[in-house]
Amino acid sequence: MNYKLLIEYDGTKYNGWQKQGNTTNTIQGKIEDVLARMQGHEVEVHGAGRTDAGVHAKEQVANVHLDGGRTAEEIRVYLNKYLPEDIGILDVSEVPGRFHSRLNAVEKIYSYHLAFGEQKHVFERKFITFLEEKPDVEKMKQAALYLEGEHDFRSFCANKRMKKTTVRKLYAVTFREYGDELFIEYRGEGFLYNMVRIMTGTLIEVGQGKRSPKEIESILRGRDRSLAGPTAPARGLTLLKVIYPQ
Amino acid sequence: MNYKLLIEYDGTKYNGWQKQGNTTNTIQGKIEDVLARMQGHEVEVHGAGRTDAGVHAKEQVANVHLDGGRTAEEIRVYLNKYLPEDIGILDVSEVPGRFHSRLNAVEKIYSYHLAFGEQKHVFERKFITFLEEKPDVEKMKQAALYLEGEHDFRSFCANKRMKKTTVRKLYAVTFREYGDELFIEYRGEGFLYNMVRIMTGTLIEVGQGKRSPKEIESILRGRDRSLAGPTAPARGLTLLKVIYPQ
Repeated sequence: MNYKLLIEYDGTKYNGWQKQGNTTNTIQGKIEDVLARMQGHEVEVHGAGRTDAGVHAKEQVANVHLDGGRTAEEIRVYLNKYLPEDIGILDVSEVPGRFHSRLNAVEKIYSYHLAFGEQKHVFERKFITFLEEKPDVEKMKQAALYLEGEHDFRSFCANKRMKKTTVRKLYAVTFREYGDELFIEYRGEGFLYNMVRIMTGTLIEVGQGKRSPKEIESILRGRDRSLAGPTAPARGLTLLKVIYPQ
Repeated sequence: MNYKLLIEYDGTKYNGWQKQGNTTNTIQGKIEDVLARMQGHEVEVHGAGRTDAGVHAKEQVANVHLDGGRTAEEIRVYLNKYLPEDIGILDVSEVPGRFHSRLNAVEKIYSYHLAFGEQKHVFERKFITFLEEKPDVEKMKQAALYLEGEHDFRSFCANKRMKKTTVRKLYAVTFREYGDELFIEYRGEGFLYNMVRIMTGTLIEVGQGKRSPKEIESILRGRDRSLAGPTAPARGLTLLKVIYPQ
């Protein structure tokens, strides 16, 4: 039986979603450990987005093939009981055997949360990147227009040995301001390794006047990571949603 | 110069607001340490509400007499710079010399946050008390009606050697439900030691069918702590606001 899981996590303490090589303490690893305990044998959980170390998720999606014998709701309750308090299973549902969380996803939505100035935002502090000065958001919006659309995002990819295509469709970059807080939402068909964080780091530099909005064009054209800005910290980034065709 | 501070804190790691005797690691102590560093001599910060260990605040109020030489805004920036990330100063303003945060307060608003069932509420988990089963909220509302008004709340006071009056006015107890979450808001002129947590623990027992709503009457009449329910955990409690006459 194939099950789709909706998962929320505070990524602060984890080495990201994906278990690979010797990487321990991952979200995928924690969920697989609990399911292996439930099943009595190892299982593999397939995540839709491989969030980096320290990145959070409000609704990550994964799928896993499990033996029968428990209802979806029983599986959810079991998982929540044995998972640590910073990983929660929002929903478990039965899906067709061929459903794959990553391969079938048609869109992902990430949100980057920035706050400016001295306010500490105590209750959300672990999910925010703080900047001393407020950047020029209008300039950031202008720069983001150059990012939207289908481009080769190689300059915004941290994986230098990326052999597959680095062309991606970025559907929209949306800015929402609330006082001294700024949320940048990225909607795209898929994202390269560190792509959202490098885009954010570059947009911040535009907002700080270190680059012009138009420079995004030549950064994209150059296809070279060193042309783009720094990788913004993981803590401000949250995977909001993964969308599938209905 | 007398200054009024608005303070938010995640109380998880602290031994409450008040520094007393050998109690270290308090919110008051952290703020006094930073101000002493700023002034070059010790200062005393007076808080409006003495929140217990583990209790949070969205807008605690305190006042402190400081030497001149800095604007209120400079004091705020200094405090936020040197305070830990779980204590934030929302505002600093000059107030008349006779203003005292506790003595002049006319109303305090506390909120108790409960969640029921298996959902983990990962992003707010440190500010929630979890119950396995949803209690009967209608019964809790009926019970709360007996608490509202002016009563001797001795049965709801953890301080057995309380010499002063234990009569308090509780203006309103309001319930707000969102799915599997319940917020209980208490507005009163002032609260006794652990009073909000003991009222919450008692209301929960009513909601669980362990007591009838009408039992609140005899608990109040008995003036004996052992008649009331358990003290609900600190983590679900937040001081929302302190109100002064305008």
